Amino acid sequence: MIKAGIIGGAGYTGLELIRLLLMHPEVEISVVTSRRYKGKLISDVNPHLEPFIELEYEDVDTKEIADRADIVFLAVPHGSAMDYVPQLRARGARVIDLSADYRLKKDEYERIYKRQHKDKDKERRKSVYGLTELHPEVADADLIANPGCYPTGAILAVAPLVKGNEGGGRVKQVVFDSKSGISGAGAEPSAKSHFPNLAENIVPYEVTAHRHVAEMRMELGVKVSFTPHVIPSIRGILTTAHVFIEENEAITQDEIEEIYKRFYEGKRFIRLRKGLPSLSSVRGTNFCDIGFKIEEESDRIVVISAIDNLVKGGSGQAIQNMNLMFGMDERKGLWFPGLVP
Amino acid sequence: MIKAGIIGGAGYTGLELIRLLLMHPEVEISVVTSRRYKGKLISDVNPHLEPFIELEYEDVDTKEIADRADIVFLAVPHGSAMDYVPQLRARGARVIDLSADYRLKKDEYERIYKRQHKDKDKERRKSVYGLTELHPEVADADLIANPGCYPTGAILAVAPLVKGNEGGGRVKQVVFDSKSGISGAGAEPSAKSHFPNLAENIVPYEVTAHRHVAEMRMELGVKVSFTPHVIPSIRGILTTAHVFIEENEAITQDEIEEIYKRFYEGKRFIRLRKGLPSLSSVRGTNFCDIGFKIEEESDRIVVISAIDNLVKGGSGQAIQNMNLMFGMDERKGLWFPGLVP
Amino acid sequence: MIKAGIIGGAGYTGLELIRLLLMHPEVEISVVTSRRYKGKLISDVNPHLEPFIELEYEDVDTKEIADRADIVFLAVPHGSAMDYVPQLRARGARVIDLSADYRLKKDEYERIYKRQHKDKDKERRKSVYGLTELHPEVADADLIANPGCYPTGAILAVAPLVKGNEGGGRVKQVVFDSKSGISGAGAEPSAKSHFPNLAENIVPYEVTAHRHVAEMRMELGVKVSFTPHVIPSIRGILTTAHVFIEENEAITQDEIEEIYKRFYEGKRFIRLRKGLPSLSSVRGTNFCDIGFKIEEESDRIVVISAIDNLVKGGSGQAIQNMNLMFGMDERKGLWFPGLVP
Amino acid sequence: MIKAGIIGGAGYTGLELIRLLLMHPEVEISVVTSRRYKGKLISDVNPHLEPFIELEYEDVDTKEIADRADIVFLAVPHGSAMDYVPQLRARGARVIDLSADYRLKKDEYERIYKRQHKDKDKERRKSVYGLTELHPEVADADLIANPGCYPTGAILAVAPLVKGNEGGGRVKQVVFDSKSGISGAGAEPSAKSHFPNLAENIVPYEVTAHRHVAEMRMELGVKVSFTPHVIPSIRGILTTAHVFIEENEAITQDEIEEIYKRFYEGKRFIRLRKGLPSLSSVRGTNFCDIGFKIEEESDRIVVISAIDNLVKGGSGQAIQNMNLMFGMDERKGLWFPGLVP
Repeated sequence: MIKAGIIGGAGYTGLELIRLLLMHPEVEISVVTSRRYKGKLISDVNPHLEPFIELEYEDVDTKEIADRADIVFLAVPHGSAMDYVPQLRARGARVIDLSADYRLKKDEYERIYKRQHKDKDKERRKSVYGLTELHPEVADADLIANPGCYPTGAILAVAPLVKGNEGGGRVKQVVFDSKSGISGAGAEPSAKSHFPNLAENIVPYEVTAHRHVAEMRMELGVKVSFTPHVIPSIRGILTTAHVFIEENEAITQDEIEEIYKRFYEGKRFIRLRKGLPSLSSVRGTNFCDIGFKIEEESDRIVVISAIDNLVKGGSGQAIQNMNLMFGMDERKGLWFPGLVP
Repeated sequence: MIKAGIIGGAGYTGLELIRLLLMHPEVEISVVTSRRYKGKLISDVNPHLEPFIELEYEDVDTKEIADRADIVFLAVPHGSAMDYVPQLRARGARVIDLSADYRLKKDEYERIYKRQHKDKDKERRKSVYGLTELHPEVADADLIANPGCYPTGAILAVAPLVKGNEGGGRVKQVVFDSKSGISGAGAEPSAKSHFPNLAENIVPYEVTAHRHVAEMRMELGVKVSFTPHVIPSIRGILTTAHVFIEENEAITQDEIEEIYKRFYEGKRFIRLRKGLPSLSSVRGTNFCDIGFKIEEESDRIVVISAIDNLVKGGSGQAIQNMNLMFGMDERKGLWFPGLVP
Repeated sequence: MIKAGIIGGAGYTGLELIRLLLMHPEVEISVVTSRRYKGKLISDVNPHLEPFIELEYEDVDTKEIADRADIVFLAVPHGSAMDYVPQLRARGARVIDLSADYRLKKDEYERIYKRQHKDKDKERRKSVYGLTELHPEVADADLIANPGCYPTGAILAVAPLVKGNEGGGRVKQVVFDSKSGISGAGAEPSAKSHFPNLAENIVPYEVTAHRHVAEMRMELGVKVSFTPHVIPSIRGILTTAHVFIEENEAITQDEIEEIYKRFYEGKRFIRLRKGLPSLSSVRGTNFCDIGFKIEEESDRIVVISAIDNLVKGGSGQAIQNMNLMFGMDERKGLWFPGLVP
Repeated sequence: MIKAGIIGGAGYTGLELIRLLLMHPEVEISVVTSRRYKGKLISDVNPHLEPFIELEYEDVDTKEIADRADIVFLAVPHGSAMDYVPQLRARGARVIDLSADYRLKKDEYERIYKRQHKDKDKERRKSVYGLTELHPEVADADLIANPGCYPTGAILAVAPLVKGNEGGGRVKQVVFDSKSGISGAGAEPSAKSHFPNLAENIVPYEVTAHRHVAEMRMELGVKVSFTPHVIPSIRGILTTAHVFIEENEAITQDEIEEIYKRFYEGKRFIRLRKGLPSLSSVRGTNFCDIGFKIEEESDRIVVISAIDNLVKGGSGQAIQNMNLMFGMDERKGLWFPGLVP
């Protein structure tokens, strides 16, 4: 059994790791930390986990965590993960960081997140950007920078058009208009998550300057804009990608289908849809559902992707990466249908 | 007192007309039709209207309606309004048609709605497209083609940039990504409006070919694309307009503010927001809230508009038009704050 | 014009007073206080109120408020209202207190709210419990203790059976099982109002010992139990009253209807329903809708009442009381249908 | 592998059986019927099931189903199940009927469901009422009458008080006030499930005469009343049981805890809660969470139970019964935590 540690086990990312790892046949959760709930039974704080986990939240030394776990998931805020990585790696633990700390180049990170990167060996560590379908090299990595929730849905939506052999070169510009469930904003109550503010509403925010756009640009290499909104749902991100292709590059529905099929061949968590996807089919799962439609007499293609922000957009993808790191089938512990209705 | 008739008074558009006209100090509802509920008290079918209206639903001759009303609102499906207009106009009733039948040129209408226009005098009637803020000539009209819900929010969002003196000529292309409450789909239950299908979800549809795009193109005259979604809310349309300007046409936040202020000067139902609008502030009202943000180092401006689809996007705007047709202040009967929270 | 002051104008109760008073033809809001937002435009903090109110939030002396207002609404927390009342009354302002401070007898208050009552003249002031339909003496009062939201819906549901001439004496016991929208918990974000905790859920709380039961017992004088729940809605309280009658007191549907009709004759905000009420018909309004059903071969009658917790359950009822205090029709400013759909 | 057939595989009960059986390690789904979707791939009609099931919906002879399955689940409407049972049993298939057809005694069934029972051998078949925790004899049954969703949550909530050795005899009367997600009303759109009718609402129905009360009375044998409501949630039933005990039978919190612990010892799907349960912890699971509170100076105890109506209240409990019928651990295929948040 693989022993897994979770640093930051009381937020939504940490809880989702617990929920999913509990169903994983090859993993045993060995240590979960939380300063706030130190000493409390995890299942007392989170009654839905009773009686599946008997551990208490701990607040232990990073070195000890490294010793008690084969793999450590960092479910801590941006800026905090880089405090743990050096020691964890020094003691030989493999690490999957769900924060932004190892996703971007140092310069870019410091510019976007407006803080210095404290890990002197940041570049040397060769962290792999853990968008599993695009980065098979996660299998050989010791340190994974798990992607942001928005970038996961956005990049997967258009990668075949932008990066595929047949699609590449045609795309001029992409505008991602994303709609996210509120769980992406975390477990801490705020004005944004206050029910009377969100119910019967949809709230645009950081419409031209959300930090996640940096990951999209890094991975796609074309002109990218991004505008997020919060919708009155708990889970899920639906991304509407408005893709503009070179005017003279006419393309048919069939050609695009072919491009996507080839690009995602063998990728078990990508489901290409005949129609347009929506959030319900991916609820609670690691799938990314994709559908598209070409606008007639136009340079625009609309590609829609749907993910569960906490699973494929976070903890599920982290486990998918872990599976590959440990030589297992990527589906292990993640292969079940969504909660419909 | 102005006597108002409503043809099709059992759908959401008709009911919203009733709700709003009941609060109008200069209007008396004189006749309301519904084939389905003929002979039933309106307040028995719709208990929220008790004890405000004592009328029964009727199923009467168009001529009789014309005789019993100074103004007739057509809240019937597309393709059906044109059956009533000729007779109503022939008997001298003024008409506000909330369907699509008189919004577009005949050819365009027949192409988009895939049916023949049955009113031989369609073009001669000089219907006015009732987007009140852009068409002051509604004041002199006898027949108003009340705009679609999506076009109202979309066109108002970008008109100053596209059509204003200072803004005009700069805009290259606009992509409207709209999110609508489900009441836009009507009072009749369907798979789309089935609670388990919509709750915790967001559903894109007709993402490249929604019929409402024709009105947007007609009014704006620039390259326009449109992609609608349904969100798990009852009311409201939030439109995210991705506006692309000519690359060499740099523009500042202040300049845009100035353009919008001038363009909408004196338009009482347009509220320019310092931040970004959302649906809650317009709930139940005739306001269109607008805010925007310029993307740095980009040719994109994001403009957000928020309306209540049943009020400014339908029945409220119809009444606003009626007010002007009868020489009243446009605010009459519509001047109240939104239902927050 | 009546000059109205609001102490505590930034919470939901205060905001609802503003929303409603702005529509009142005989009232001018003269002063609104908020320590937190002192000096800010009310419509900047609450964009839905633009451009209806031009006042700023103030933090002024109680005496000054008394001088600037004919009537003062106290929309402050329990325990705080009694700090204002003596001075306001001493300067001659009439007062409607929306907190619990003047609802119960001193002893009962101190026992239930676990604090001392600081107003030495509490009993002498002869505050009237402002459940308008049951207390016509509000018309002569200078100090109104506006009822709690739950008691309003609960007491109105069963008063005719418990207190009416024909109904009285038959009722043995009542269990109120209430379901409230979350706005009752206030404008401040909390774990309870956190969207992911409330959506797709219903949360029972204080199921045997909610403080509001004291008001129900005071008014009804029979054996009363009360169990509240929070539902994933913004507004509204639906109360299911399980009424147990003396075994030998058989009663028919018609008799009960007659009892209710007589009891509420002339009470314009009570709507007796043929079927069972629900929240949508009362959304945004001051109505209390009531319906009932007798269980066959049983001693149980089920009475359902529906109110908007912020209107009839709070600020609307306060204005209804104000209307009567100033000799106006109780409907003034409150007479409009609900926001349906 | 156990071969399972599902008759009626396109409704919510059938789909939930499929979702759960797909995760069951000892079961293979061998045949799924639907007249409406005959010949269509199940995963085309229900995209969330792709790529987990490759079967098509069929419309085959009952005999053939019996031959192709070891166990047949009947997920058909009341009145229809009894058309299948005789033939299925005659061919030796074990049957779990999720309709009401075999839950009540013949007379009672005909009285409550207002139709004749067509199975002449109804009584002889010795169907077992499949409320697993109360009926260990399901292990030996060939025909299970799976309980209704409401009765499951209601009966489990109070059985220890009513039937336990220590609790028995003390309970005088129980009123169940239940709140259900709308999925209980099925997959077919209706006015009840129309989003604008249910969102921001709660709807009481059949408040004194819901048919499910018959099962509650049959199992509990005390005076029972039942009032259901629909809440704006997809899944879940929260039941608030108002339990009235004999006046002289004072009982403490500790005693009740002890009674429940003993009664449910070894029952893995019952979770006794320290606080009060709510729906989120049971979402998607087979758990029944129970909590309670004694009212002071009163004869009332409030017991709250929370289940997922489609799992423990339907398809999950059916599989739990199947597990026992085939000599397996009751948890098989059902042992995972709920989808939180």
